[in-house]
Amino acid sequence: MRTTTTGVFFATLMLAAVCRAAPVSDPLPSWTDGPTKARIVAFVQSVTDPRAGTYVPPGERIATFDNDGTLWSEQPLYVQLAFMLDRIRALAPQHPLWQTTQPFAAVLKGDRQALAAQGEAGAAALLAATHAGMTTGEFADIVNAWLASARHPKYGRPYTELVFQPMVELLAYLRANGFQTWIVSGGGIDFMRPWTERAYGIPPERVVGSSGKLKFELRDGEPVLVKLADIDHIDDGPGKPVGIAHFIGRRPIAAFGNSDGDLQMLQYTAGGAGPRLLLIVHHTDADREAAYDRDSHIGKLDKALDEGRARGWVIVDTKNDWQRIFAHEPQ
Amino acid sequence: MRTTTTGVFFATLMLAAVCRAAPVSDPLPSWTDGPTKARIVAFVQSVTDPRAGTYVPPGERIATFDNDGTLWSEQPLYVQLAFMLDRIRALAPQHPLWQTTQPFAAVLKGDRQALAAQGEAGAAALLAATHAGMTTGEFADIVNAWLASARHPKYGRPYTELVFQPMVELLAYLRANGFQTWIVSGGGIDFMRPWTERAYGIPPERVVGSSGKLKFELRDGEPVLVKLADIDHIDDGPGKPVGIAHFIGRRPIAAFGNSDGDLQMLQYTAGGAGPRLLLIVHHTDADREAAYDRDSHIGKLDKALDEGRARGWVIVDTKNDWQRIFAHEPQ
Repeated sequence: MRTTTTGVFFATLMLAAVCRAAPVSDPLPSWTDGPTKARIVAFVQSVTDPRAGTYVPPGERIATFDNDGTLWSEQPLYVQLAFMLDRIRALAPQHPLWQTTQPFAAVLKGDRQALAAQGEAGAAALLAATHAGMTTGEFADIVNAWLASARHPKYGRPYTELVFQPMVELLAYLRANGFQTWIVSGGGIDFMRPWTERAYGIPPERVVGSSGKLKFELRDGEPVLVKLADIDHIDDGPGKPVGIAHFIGRRPIAAFGNSDGDLQMLQYTAGGAGPRLLLIVHHTDADREAAYDRDSHIGKLDKALDEGRARGWVIVDTKNDWQRIFAHEPQ
Repeated sequence: MRTTTTGVFFATLMLAAVCRAAPVSDPLPSWTDGPTKARIVAFVQSVTDPRAGTYVPPGERIATFDNDGTLWSEQPLYVQLAFMLDRIRALAPQHPLWQTTQPFAAVLKGDRQALAAQGEAGAAALLAATHAGMTTGEFADIVNAWLASARHPKYGRPYTELVFQPMVELLAYLRANGFQTWIVSGGGIDFMRPWTERAYGIPPERVVGSSGKLKFELRDGEPVLVKLADIDHIDDGPGKPVGIAHFIGRRPIAAFGNSDGDLQMLQYTAGGAGPRLLLIVHHTDADREAAYDRDSHIGKLDKALDEGRARGWVIVDTKNDWQRIFAHEPQ
């Protein structure tokens, strides 16, 4: 029996060594230890502890995330807008009349004032020229090719590297705790789906966004879907809870946004019974990323900030709550 | 050492007994052993075997199922139509004018000829009266209450018990092999979502269907979504691939239908590279369920049957391929 006892003794020692070598690691290393991080962790524990009265079964652990300004940077320009302007420039040689026709001429001359003067009709014409007329597969290829070559004007890096590292960690942390993580963005659904799995671990079927109408066609016997210029759904403001009900069919228990366009999603998520996590990313770090809120043209955060403060939602102060903003920063 | 050897000997015996007690069980017991079942199993093996050139990663194993006539019986009437007619009768006491106003009078008198004469405008009026004006939560409660009391005219059982047992097994078999199983139905998305998880193991967010527009409102401070009478999407025929692209954002590798309304979904799924499973349920069993195809008013199967035969899709002959149709049948 001596051998066996010795064996058990060494096995126990080895097990202890393994346990010391792999402590429970921090799932949110880019978040500053403090009240914000503590509230996130407390919420997750409250809905995943089967003995707690606040327990929520995995299928109902729905978390919805805005994209622009919440998961990746929307400054100095929405990325999809940068894509659209680049696309107009790339297509211009095939459309000589664009040089003298608005809104295209304004884009090609870089005349922002003239562009702004084109209003909604101008925006619709640019969208139609860049986001319609091709199949969904062709559009995905165009988006992927652009992302491979485009660089952010400030950081000189691909846009998909400019996702917020703390939010990527938060997404993974939630999924590790049985949550479904969804994007619910005002951005185009077809613009996001080609890369969200790579950037965030969110597959195409978990992306909700604005959309144009589609048409089924047999092209030379090949079944395809063609993107039309008609708007189908604007997934912003009150359109976000509509998109959630339409795509998910359940009320989320956690929602994450950064602007007034997310207010109704946060309100809808806050409604109903049981524990909730409502979080607003407040951009306060002009050095590392950007500082903006009430007066911003992009990602205006005003009413949602007031309501969030009044109702005790989690307000992330990026300067203090985020140790790192981007993965490329030194740790 | 004698004791240890004996221990190992008995442990081995016990393990062998356990293995004999639990052989690899047939995941499709309600399917007749034969070519149809063999083709289903061969397809699943071909896309899940990591050494095969036909391997498909789990995230891309998308399978889409029509509902009416594919997953549950659509005879003698679409279940949602039975719901709508019952709902008109239930609401009639609050609407005295319905007794003399079409299309309601036709429903209340059971006058099928007068009802058919009301055409699309009549159908829209009935839909508006039964499927709009309430919140999504209220509508789900109405559907659940109806399902709890309504009985099928032929079988005298709740409709949710009249799901096709072989298809329920097929759904579970596919999920056990890493597939996402989706419903893509012409039926109403809000009519299906309250019960598909219970009946098929398919959660609300994996249900695609026809839909009306929704409106976000704060009712007494409570955030809700109100169902409007305007049609948003008709998820039938060419609308099915549109719904698939919109909700799923990837092309399925397997599709299951039973009528011409599923043809474009089958065509779209058949397109693209790699292995595919295309399956049509052909109802051939008048005794146990129903026999219908080319001349049926409900679930007409004509062009899709021709194309399915020409292209070698799997055509299920319910009389011969299904050992059981419903779970309540004796085995």
